[in-house]
Amino acid sequence: MGSYRPKVVIVGAGFGGLEAAKRLAHEDADVTVIDRRNHHLFQPLLYQVATAALSPADIAAPIRSILAHAANVRVLLDSICAVIPQERAVRLQSGAVINYDWLILATGARHSYFGRDDLSRHAPGIKTIEDATDVRRRVLLALEHAETEADKVKRDALLTFVVIGGGPTGVEMAGAIAELARKSVSRDFRSITPRCSRVILVEAGLALLPAFPKSLQQETLRSLEQLGVEVHLGAAVTEISANRVCIGTERIAAHTIVWAAGVQASPAAEWLGAAADRLGRVKVTPELHAPNHPEIFVIGDTAACSNSHGEALPGIAPVAKQQGRYVARRILGRTQGPFRYRDYGNLATIGRSRAVADFGRIRLSGFAAWLVWCVAHVWFLVGFRSRLSVMLSWAWNYLTFARSARLITGPVQALPTPAAAPLKGAIQ
Amino acid sequence: MGSYRPKVVIVGAGFGGLEAAKRLAHEDADVTVIDRRNHHLFQPLLYQVATAALSPADIAAPIRSILAHAANVRVLLDSICAVIPQERAVRLQSGAVINYDWLILATGARHSYFGRDDLSRHAPGIKTIEDATDVRRRVLLALEHAETEADKVKRDALLTFVVIGGGPTGVEMAGAIAELARKSVSRDFRSITPRCSRVILVEAGLALLPAFPKSLQQETLRSLEQLGVEVHLGAAVTEISANRVCIGTERIAAHTIVWAAGVQASPAAEWLGAAADRLGRVKVTPELHAPNHPEIFVIGDTAACSNSHGEALPGIAPVAKQQGRYVARRILGRTQGPFRYRDYGNLATIGRSRAVADFGRIRLSGFAAWLVWCVAHVWFLVGFRSRLSVMLSWAWNYLTFARSARLITGPVQALPTPAAAPLKGAIQ
Repeated sequence: MGSYRPKVVIVGAGFGGLEAAKRLAHEDADVTVIDRRNHHLFQPLLYQVATAALSPADIAAPIRSILAHAANVRVLLDSICAVIPQERAVRLQSGAVINYDWLILATGARHSYFGRDDLSRHAPGIKTIEDATDVRRRVLLALEHAETEADKVKRDALLTFVVIGGGPTGVEMAGAIAELARKSVSRDFRSITPRCSRVILVEAGLALLPAFPKSLQQETLRSLEQLGVEVHLGAAVTEISANRVCIGTERIAAHTIVWAAGVQASPAAEWLGAAADRLGRVKVTPELHAPNHPEIFVIGDTAACSNSHGEALPGIAPVAKQQGRYVARRILGRTQGPFRYRDYGNLATIGRSRAVADFGRIRLSGFAAWLVWCVAHVWFLVGFRSRLSVMLSWAWNYLTFARSARLITGPVQALPTPAAAPLKGAIQ
Repeated sequence: MGSYRPKVVIVGAGFGGLEAAKRLAHEDADVTVIDRRNHHLFQPLLYQVATAALSPADIAAPIRSILAHAANVRVLLDSICAVIPQERAVRLQSGAVINYDWLILATGARHSYFGRDDLSRHAPGIKTIEDATDVRRRVLLALEHAETEADKVKRDALLTFVVIGGGPTGVEMAGAIAELARKSVSRDFRSITPRCSRVILVEAGLALLPAFPKSLQQETLRSLEQLGVEVHLGAAVTEISANRVCIGTERIAAHTIVWAAGVQASPAAEWLGAAADRLGRVKVTPELHAPNHPEIFVIGDTAACSNSHGEALPGIAPVAKQQGRYVARRILGRTQGPFRYRDYGNLATIGRSRAVADFGRIRLSGFAAWLVWCVAHVWFLVGFRSRLSVMLSWAWNYLTFARSARLITGPVQALPTPAAAPLKGAIQ
């Protein structure tokens, strides 16, 4: 009795997985969402947690709450160990084995040190809430210690912030650190002044924001320089240690180093035994499934996918969300053709009143682009409460130049001891 | 040339130290505030962070920002190692030695396990932001694991929450956990229902809230029981392990145990070589200074102090603030007599719309007391932004029964392995 209800297992509740789950809610399917964290994270605003403008809870919402209304969706806090395609099952860390008719792998990406994971200690990246509060602690502690450091050389190192990588995350981080270290804190400290700080953005390529048109790249460069950021283009990082970065042959004493130079997909390709590109992403078919497995979809940052012109799709939220929606429609039998990405434009922010927006023929920069960016990000934030809270924080920060979440949590005592980690050749 | 400017060193920026610093701002004194954290913490609301109603940044503000307007006050992120009264100096962890003409020790208290510090692993207390997010993680993880646990015995243990200590913190925690575990989460989970959870409050004495009149104690008991909390009075905890609490001879399998049973003052008495009471508090003179050292004041939870009737003053924010104000006035030569505490009343909250308030002849309970409590706590919150944010969160939580800060941060994987820590005799 009763019609056939397919079992859909979604691994990962980022933008792609969550969108698929939402589209399958209240439909004729039994959906299981598995994530190793209890919250969906609005990653595009994570750099604002790292720079003390927002609180973690402002940009994260419990996955359970988001999907609470859908009785056909259950949420498990667990992580995946293996996919067993011949049995149509996934094995989880808790030991549970869950069967599927359709599997959606949306497990995202982490920052990559290109095989040099030991660098994460000296140059953390920003992908999780813990990453962001760790960077926040480093930046704020550097300012605190600089306030009392009598030795000028040490003090200069404490007040030097290096961001590695000139993509959107690197640009946002550099701009936000410059605002924090050069403006927001100026009235709170007695012995350091805005002019003491040095913020350096290093990019191996010849331009910032490679996905943007040249005019906006130049606008970005100009805006960052107005904020006091030194931008090094075509510059390879050759060494990173606790208190030093080498850019080519130049040595820069810097206490705080942030990594925004590269990502590596989660190991979905290994689970499936499928071919991967150099970032570890599964090479999916135009229908977003794994080769030879029409029942296993791979979406978001874990999938290597091209648009109709053969250009690789970027690892951004709109791609993941559209893929999640497409896959849900496919499972429900509502679409047959290949996935097509609709590009609504590209946004990046640089700082207070500064952003760039590329909508094809329409290109904006400065305050207008920043307003578009604010509206778009608040709009897409999950949960009404988060939206209100973020708007309030932004309005407050904008009017007062204050940073409302300037908490140092976790261990506060020690400065890391220098321990050089020299690199063979360039790593960026 | 120039008048004599006394050097005032304040150690600790809790309610007492911060109030003293504020009163000395813009006065004819050079003030140094030393705290090991960069933020002032509004401890009375910490239990709301632990139960996911508020974010850490809502109840904490950078000390630097609070005192930024006062050019005669500097703030150091450091902790104290020793007081050298004969040299009128304090030695700090960074190695710095700072001279004072007046010293104010306001270093507060931590929870105390009465010599059994190993219990902190199984039964954490709530005194810092990290404590609160740790308890939040334990409570939320217990619910998550209960959702998937097939074994009924294990599941019941996961859904049993024990709070030890029937003072204001214990009452607030028990009420808030009951609301979280029995109401807020009910629609988000599929296999656990509000009736599955068990919240137990254990108190060694014969009444809850010993500082309150009997009628309000009974009202508190009734309110907690309406929320579904089992209250054990006159009950001694004899053993605590990872998954078990023994109350007298009864064994209760409980995954989450919260310690709210006792505090121990910071070691100011040791620094000074002064006499201490059994909670480690310095026995100060009626003028709040250390015996034989009129230039060293000890205030707040670190001081043992009585009112004019000879009754010991409780370790609450109003006492610390009034002491901070008094000490500042004394240093400025504006008061001569002994410190007198003005008791404006006593408040404790139990849960949504439930509180008790004792203003001497006027005693309130229920919704009226809860409104008074809300207004008082929002009013005293440091920083306009925090007040707005907290009001918004409370309004949201009240209207929706949701908990806006339900994040599990830090390590999420493992449940602690059972490791019994039997106690000799009663420990409460």
